[in-house]
Amino acid sequence: MLITTSKENLITAINAVQKAINPKSIIPMYSCIKLEAKENTVTFTGASLDIGIECKIPVQVEREGSTLIPAKYFSDIVRKLPDVPITLDLSDSLEMTIRYEKSYFTLKTMEVEDFPPLPTFKGGLDFQISSEILKKLVRQTSFAASADELKAVFTGLLWEVNGEELGLVGTDTHRLAWGKGPVLIEDKEAKGSFIIPAKIALEISRLIQDGSCHIQAEKNTVFFTFENIKINCRVLEGNFPNYRQVIPQQYVTTIQAESKKLRDAAERISLFALSNDSSNTINLKVSEGALTIHSRSDIGFGQEEMEVEHSGEDLNIAFNARYITDVFKVIDGDKVIIQLSGQLSAGIMQDPEEKDFLYLVLPVRV
Amino acid sequence: MLITTSKENLITAINAVQKAINPKSIIPMYSCIKLEAKENTVTFTGASLDIGIECKIPVQVEREGSTLIPAKYFSDIVRKLPDVPITLDLSDSLEMTIRYEKSYFTLKTMEVEDFPPLPTFKGGLDFQISSEILKKLVRQTSFAASADELKAVFTGLLWEVNGEELGLVGTDTHRLAWGKGPVLIEDKEAKGSFIIPAKIALEISRLIQDGSCHIQAEKNTVFFTFENIKINCRVLEGNFPNYRQVIPQQYVTTIQAESKKLRDAAERISLFALSNDSSNTINLKVSEGALTIHSRSDIGFGQEEMEVEHSGEDLNIAFNARYITDVFKVIDGDKVIIQLSGQLSAGIMQDPEEKDFLYLVLPVRV
Repeated sequence: MLITTSKENLITAINAVQKAINPKSIIPMYSCIKLEAKENTVTFTGASLDIGIECKIPVQVEREGSTLIPAKYFSDIVRKLPDVPITLDLSDSLEMTIRYEKSYFTLKTMEVEDFPPLPTFKGGLDFQISSEILKKLVRQTSFAASADELKAVFTGLLWEVNGEELGLVGTDTHRLAWGKGPVLIEDKEAKGSFIIPAKIALEISRLIQDGSCHIQAEKNTVFFTFENIKINCRVLEGNFPNYRQVIPQQYVTTIQAESKKLRDAAERISLFALSNDSSNTINLKVSEGALTIHSRSDIGFGQEEMEVEHSGEDLNIAFNARYITDVFKVIDGDKVIIQLSGQLSAGIMQDPEEKDFLYLVLPVRV
Repeated sequence: MLITTSKENLITAINAVQKAINPKSIIPMYSCIKLEAKENTVTFTGASLDIGIECKIPVQVEREGSTLIPAKYFSDIVRKLPDVPITLDLSDSLEMTIRYEKSYFTLKTMEVEDFPPLPTFKGGLDFQISSEILKKLVRQTSFAASADELKAVFTGLLWEVNGEELGLVGTDTHRLAWGKGPVLIEDKEAKGSFIIPAKIALEISRLIQDGSCHIQAEKNTVFFTFENIKINCRVLEGNFPNYRQVIPQQYVTTIQAESKKLRDAAERISLFALSNDSSNTINLKVSEGALTIHSRSDIGFGQEEMEVEHSGEDLNIAFNARYITDVFKVIDGDKVIIQLSGQLSAGIMQDPEEKDFLYLVLPVRV
């Protein structure tokens, strides 16, 4: 293998495949990048048990070849190089030399034959989505997924295709975020769903620049293809509970508040809530057009009061403060609507300008 | 105590005194801010065993009084408040209420009588320095101090007054940074020195805005006074070695290199050095107008070559890579001069445009 290319090209490809690589993997080849130079293309591949990423860069190949090099060191060196032409030279199968001007770096390589081929799509759900909508749906739902690896399926996002619509759902069982958007699909009657880790969905949404993304899903694997990148991702096994059952059908109390005021007030009151224990409970009282939030703890007492638009009954209810403030990561509008159906029933939060998004949060018993 | 003031005023004073406070101090009063409202001024005070900071803000005092409140909670709440008038109301000695608009927060307080008075200056070195020069000297030397608390005196900076000149020295015994600048002093024959923790010197240099700083030093305490802030700092006991002895009197090899090129090359080569062990050794070879830097380790080999201006003998020498790259935090010029006096003698690095700064680094035996 002998190629010369720009630092920018190398960085683009390294950045893409590194998302799949765990430099501390106990399986050595999973800490490596596979490089394959063939017919005016270098293919970079990174993989772990759950995900594989392939990125192709166009380049004049002076000598074909392939190798496995430690991702971390290769990446660290290339990132620190000046912006000049860089040569990758695999003179023998034991080491690769990175050269620029009068300087060079020789990295020990691994046996490329050990690296398993990435899977290919054999049939199933097959659709296109605009990268903008994909990014939006992942952002709207991933924050609500569980970060606790023991909660297995709830670390994932549910993707539900229903004809020309894709819905995403993230939940940690205490709160749930749902968003939907249009897709391009040949079979307008297609129905199907899969769950992939929220973390991986986020990485993919960060890699996509613009244009559209081609998604193909079979039983165990989902494929994402865009620009010069191909990703395969293992699906999470298990099922989401029927979240539609949890969404209340009617509400007794509806308020509309200013997003920033509500978020800031909840954050201030949570200072008192947090100092007590990890439950981080804040109490909301809706009465006659005013919303009062309070919490008491060892350090003292805090109470915020703000005017809101209010219809329906007066109500006292308690929530985990973080669940209330979290949703403002994805509600960008000035206003937020909160709908409540009783002290022990789920509350709904929505941006009045965005009907294709819904956030559901369970109250805390106090 | 009853006062109303702006969020900005409160934040300014909290930011200043918090630098002295350890919120996890096992001595409860040292995790608190003392507030004293008296004669149109509120004085904020924060202290620990090593440092005390006092900051005064002008304010209309409606009711005088003083109290001790937990710094962390007070600071967290005030930071999250909107930018509106804020009232601090000490209704009884057990709790203080922070109020704005219709919202309020009540924090439990501590006995203010327990808080010791800050020390006052009784005589000794007494001079003024421009804040710009103070900031520069601290920046030029603090990075070279030791971060290892076991090295006691070497976590400090030596301040040496010699008439109208102040020199600062930071060293961890492997490398040393020295800078000097002018001061305003009445006694032009005054000589004296003190050592204070580099961390505290850095905090002080960050607090100073502009104008000048009044410094007064007595045996155990140094006082810094500027704007509305007064700081007292306990001096570190112990002595610096005679660093002047270590500075070579003549050099056999002098090179001048481009700062950025040398720093980047040393950083790249240190990737190889670091993977081996913690010694992080890189080898420098000066020969016929070229500087070659190399290192070998388990992962491979790296070599950088660059042209330099070179006079004197050819030389091979090895350094800890970090000691070489560190100095570029404070050498802002395009060029750096390196003077060497042999494989086992200290090397000197300087900005050719800045004669009042010198960096000395000991080589590694290889």
